[in-house]
Amino acid sequence: MTSNPLRIGLIGTGRIGQVHAANIAASPDAELSWVADPFIDGATGVAARFGGRATADAEELFAADDVDAVLIASPTPTHVDLIEKAIDRGLPVLCEKPIDLDIARVDALRPKVASLGVPVALGFNRRFDPAFAEVRARVAAGEIGSLEQLTIISRDPAAPPADYVAVSGGIFRDMTIHDFDMARFFLPDIVSVSATGTNTFDPGAREHGDFDTAVVTLTASTGAVVTIINSRHSAVGYDQRLEAFGSEGSLQVANRSTSLVSHSSAVSVESRAPYENFFLQRYAEAYADELASFIALARGGASASSTFEDGRAALILADAAQRSATERVAVEVPLG
Amino acid sequence: MTSNPLRIGLIGTGRIGQVHAANIAASPDAELSWVADPFIDGATGVAARFGGRATADAEELFAADDVDAVLIASPTPTHVDLIEKAIDRGLPVLCEKPIDLDIARVDALRPKVASLGVPVALGFNRRFDPAFAEVRARVAAGEIGSLEQLTIISRDPAAPPADYVAVSGGIFRDMTIHDFDMARFFLPDIVSVSATGTNTFDPGAREHGDFDTAVVTLTASTGAVVTIINSRHSAVGYDQRLEAFGSEGSLQVANRSTSLVSHSSAVSVESRAPYENFFLQRYAEAYADELASFIALARGGASASSTFEDGRAALILADAAQRSATERVAVEVPLG
Amino acid sequence: MTSNPLRIGLIGTGRIGQVHAANIAASPDAELSWVADPFIDGATGVAARFGGRATADAEELFAADDVDAVLIASPTPTHVDLIEKAIDRGLPVLCEKPIDLDIARVDALRPKVASLGVPVALGFNRRFDPAFAEVRARVAAGEIGSLEQLTIISRDPAAPPADYVAVSGGIFRDMTIHDFDMARFFLPDIVSVSATGTNTFDPGAREHGDFDTAVVTLTASTGAVVTIINSRHSAVGYDQRLEAFGSEGSLQVANRSTSLVSHSSAVSVESRAPYENFFLQRYAEAYADELASFIALARGGASASSTFEDGRAALILADAAQRSATERVAVEVPLG
Amino acid sequence: MTSNPLRIGLIGTGRIGQVHAANIAASPDAELSWVADPFIDGATGVAARFGGRATADAEELFAADDVDAVLIASPTPTHVDLIEKAIDRGLPVLCEKPIDLDIARVDALRPKVASLGVPVALGFNRRFDPAFAEVRARVAAGEIGSLEQLTIISRDPAAPPADYVAVSGGIFRDMTIHDFDMARFFLPDIVSVSATGTNTFDPGAREHGDFDTAVVTLTASTGAVVTIINSRHSAVGYDQRLEAFGSEGSLQVANRSTSLVSHSSAVSVESRAPYENFFLQRYAEAYADELASFIALARGGASASSTFEDGRAALILADAAQRSATERVAVEVPLG
Repeated sequence: MTSNPLRIGLIGTGRIGQVHAANIAASPDAELSWVADPFIDGATGVAARFGGRATADAEELFAADDVDAVLIASPTPTHVDLIEKAIDRGLPVLCEKPIDLDIARVDALRPKVASLGVPVALGFNRRFDPAFAEVRARVAAGEIGSLEQLTIISRDPAAPPADYVAVSGGIFRDMTIHDFDMARFFLPDIVSVSATGTNTFDPGAREHGDFDTAVVTLTASTGAVVTIINSRHSAVGYDQRLEAFGSEGSLQVANRSTSLVSHSSAVSVESRAPYENFFLQRYAEAYADELASFIALARGGASASSTFEDGRAALILADAAQRSATERVAVEVPLG
Repeated sequence: MTSNPLRIGLIGTGRIGQVHAANIAASPDAELSWVADPFIDGATGVAARFGGRATADAEELFAADDVDAVLIASPTPTHVDLIEKAIDRGLPVLCEKPIDLDIARVDALRPKVASLGVPVALGFNRRFDPAFAEVRARVAAGEIGSLEQLTIISRDPAAPPADYVAVSGGIFRDMTIHDFDMARFFLPDIVSVSATGTNTFDPGAREHGDFDTAVVTLTASTGAVVTIINSRHSAVGYDQRLEAFGSEGSLQVANRSTSLVSHSSAVSVESRAPYENFFLQRYAEAYADELASFIALARGGASASSTFEDGRAALILADAAQRSATERVAVEVPLG
Repeated sequence: MTSNPLRIGLIGTGRIGQVHAANIAASPDAELSWVADPFIDGATGVAARFGGRATADAEELFAADDVDAVLIASPTPTHVDLIEKAIDRGLPVLCEKPIDLDIARVDALRPKVASLGVPVALGFNRRFDPAFAEVRARVAAGEIGSLEQLTIISRDPAAPPADYVAVSGGIFRDMTIHDFDMARFFLPDIVSVSATGTNTFDPGAREHGDFDTAVVTLTASTGAVVTIINSRHSAVGYDQRLEAFGSEGSLQVANRSTSLVSHSSAVSVESRAPYENFFLQRYAEAYADELASFIALARGGASASSTFEDGRAALILADAAQRSATERVAVEVPLG
Repeated sequence: MTSNPLRIGLIGTGRIGQVHAANIAASPDAELSWVADPFIDGATGVAARFGGRATADAEELFAADDVDAVLIASPTPTHVDLIEKAIDRGLPVLCEKPIDLDIARVDALRPKVASLGVPVALGFNRRFDPAFAEVRARVAAGEIGSLEQLTIISRDPAAPPADYVAVSGGIFRDMTIHDFDMARFFLPDIVSVSATGTNTFDPGAREHGDFDTAVVTLTASTGAVVTIINSRHSAVGYDQRLEAFGSEGSLQVANRSTSLVSHSSAVSVESRAPYENFFLQRYAEAYADELASFIALARGGASASSTFEDGRAALILADAAQRSATERVAVEVPLG
């Protein structure tokens, strides 16, 4: 490509912000022009390593004339305002998930997103994971016939601290929301949600009225059923599996071992090393591909990114799951 | 053992009856003394192959003096009466599942089963599958810490004929009932059932108001959650998997390929032959071990068999699932 | 089939003789009519369990009028004489491998075997293993293109006692001989043998001038190369693998785990139970199929059994390997 | 580290030279200061992308005062002279394999390498592959007891062009030489070589008197046996496996699939995508780790790199294999 690199302003320099900054720096098609974080040492550190000017005030970033697009990796409560500011200035946005924990705030912003038409992508990175993307493409190509059941197993390595749980919005809005988006990546027309949540091990979750263990069943308008199995911890490492079951076969995504070596002895055979233990390793390629796709989107191309509407749908499903698990009823959702 | 073989009277000579007859004939500890089936050619044929006297009338079997125990493999509606006759005569019973499709009939028989104390075993053969039994023993031994999630995938090779569906009692009472018993094999204290059923492929199920696709979530009193994923068909062969997920690890039962051979080419690598396609092959060892356990039970020993109470519990869960899937609410069950 | 069962006279009631006796008893197409063993208690015991008349003198078996075929499972030095007696009487023979440890004795019998035309099958049971037979059939069908390399890994669970080693004829004639026959099952036209033998663990082998570890390379007339890797012990259980590598792909036979269960923890994932530890379990189906094929052969049908010529060829390869490993030269063999 | 980056002069800008240049550029501990190639466009292009000054004359590189170490990736016949020039100037060298195709030239340089003591590392990158390095470390830690057998399967995706074969030195010096070094990574004291080479598919190899298919057996002074299985092509992709078999268990390195996805249907189950097809992908981490280790070595630290002596030993084994395959004798080598 002969076009100039896309000049990206990054807001937020926490763990995910740093991943994006590194990917921007590594991309021949983008450069980091601004880094904003009220915690100015974070902004300064990221700018020093990956380029761009640092500021504690995102307004400065929005006012600059060398920002072509905005990447929002700040805390969730800031997302809605920052998206609005970006699209008001005509700047394409890649915003980390979720849009907000409050569907009312999302709905308030929705008409403007629709009318302005400035691209807004949501950071549901798993759509870009090579394995999940491959399965979806092969399902779409008809390789397993009609998709009848989708099973997603998603277990984090370890439960978050109790004070994070307190403000997380609960397991469905915080963790399962990735799986809701993955479900809709395959089956967008979800019509019903049934969720079960329990406490099996985490006192922090119990203390804050949250679940540490959850199973959600989604029904699509076609009759296809999605099962999502979650846990906030996993002794064997980050557990990220998926099975698409169709009328003519199935496609499965396995966990990725950290080694090609297996060990056999008189006690057990073919033992392998535990799985990659953290989402940054497991999804490293997904984050890079997500950025590449956003660059294309910002330049007017097509993108496989989750849209604002997808982000809203994921939140609707999370809200429905929360209600279903609490009130012990299935909840109909208007996505079919 | 120096004891004489246990003389077993078999009632019912359909597919399952024949499996039991063959196992009785092959056991050094049992012999087939009577074979009853109103379809006398069935009884005669089984007796000719595996021993015993044939009759069209089960009364003759009950009246005989060379029957030490009864194996009931006749149609479901006959089970309750036949169990009662057997225990009235003090004969230990192994009865195929389910006890009945009507919980009221089960409850009516229940006090007599309890008061007489004659052993009644239910034919939930999967408890005797070496792989499932191994997992349960290892979970019980604490190998994976506390059991938090149990996932059962159970898909039949092909949907039954529509006229069978019509009298089957529905997918939960007919097919999932095995999985309910398996769930209780690990977690007897189930307190809540949430079920989703849909139609994705089988016109026969749709015609008779049944589902061909189902997912059930069970909650145990401990907070542990069981997920059961069912389909009435499976292109890859009989799909029978289980994962016990605990605080310190997990144990999985894989499907059994029909061959040790794998094939690799420029297109794909490590391809294996499809799974064993039918329950009689997949569970051949389970049926044999189930019989051995029943022989021990009839002689006063201990048994891992499902009891009458287990059979009743499975039916209660099936009824609850049917109601949950129909009314779209979670249903509490009094098993905790 | 409406034909009468084939009446088989069994000579030798050791471990392998008992396997054959049980398979004969279990076959609807055969019956055990005589059991001969100079150790009369062995003969009597086998006859009591599996049928037939017992004798200490094989002559009595040969003189009987109710023997249609002979199965020789006696010690190796008796094979040549017993084969000769059987075919002199027109009785088809299934003889355990090897024919003899001395190629001169084999060659002395060879013309009579050829001229009489009475079927002689050698007990290279692995040709009947479903997995190996499947691979050979798929190679023959062209599934992997032209066969270029065949790799056979064959390791026994544990080394034999030193006094067995002393009379075994050495690892190549005693153990590798199975692999030589397997090699020729795929590539009959072997032209050259190169062998390496060492001592790594077994004092018994060292004491008797034998090897406990061996690798043999065979070259076929087509240029295809066979590699055989042997050890007299294997901590992980009986290790029996094969890879057929062709111009368009490969086919592999894996070891058979004793369980469908795998275990994962923070230390290792997907660990399985060790492999079946003994050839009688691993090759149970092969022994049964070998017998069925012999019954067909005895009745004038075709058989996939190794012939007398195959048995001779395996011994020629073993002799060549012994010379190659000792003299450290490649040895040409006249099988191309 | 606070030390300045190691300034590396690169000689040779072919495929491997470019890999090294990219890794140098990506390393925080090194920089590319000079790039030499008589094909000046190659040098200029690499310098433009990865840094440094370009020259057609390696003498200019050796004369420069901003070269701390030399990386030789030029054609094999130039290696000996370039190593000598580098160490004469006291510059540590990382030289691609092999040192030379002529052991006499290697031996002529050998005393100077020994007496000067300037570090010389050979580019046997596979020692740095995480999987192979892990197996070696676990073997060294005693995890499988005493190492008795090592099996290396190494098959290239596709045969090289005939004109490359003509000058390659033959399969043993060109391709197997990696496996000889890997064998000595585990078992340095090799005492005997037995090799078989054939032609199964490649007219180019046949035309130039080379083999396309080879099996080599190495015997170590301990009695441990190494088997190397080679082919110049592989339909399933680059085939790079290893099994270390010990008295108490085994460790295996599997091929790396290009995807986590498996596919199951009525025809076959658990099919995966073919293996990574090229050594640059398969060994990308190994090349990066090799460079890091060389940087440490150049700074006086320890390194797991193959030394000049290791490079010489690999060539001795290749020569022995060539003689063994041609003369059909086992060849003793003075490495024990």
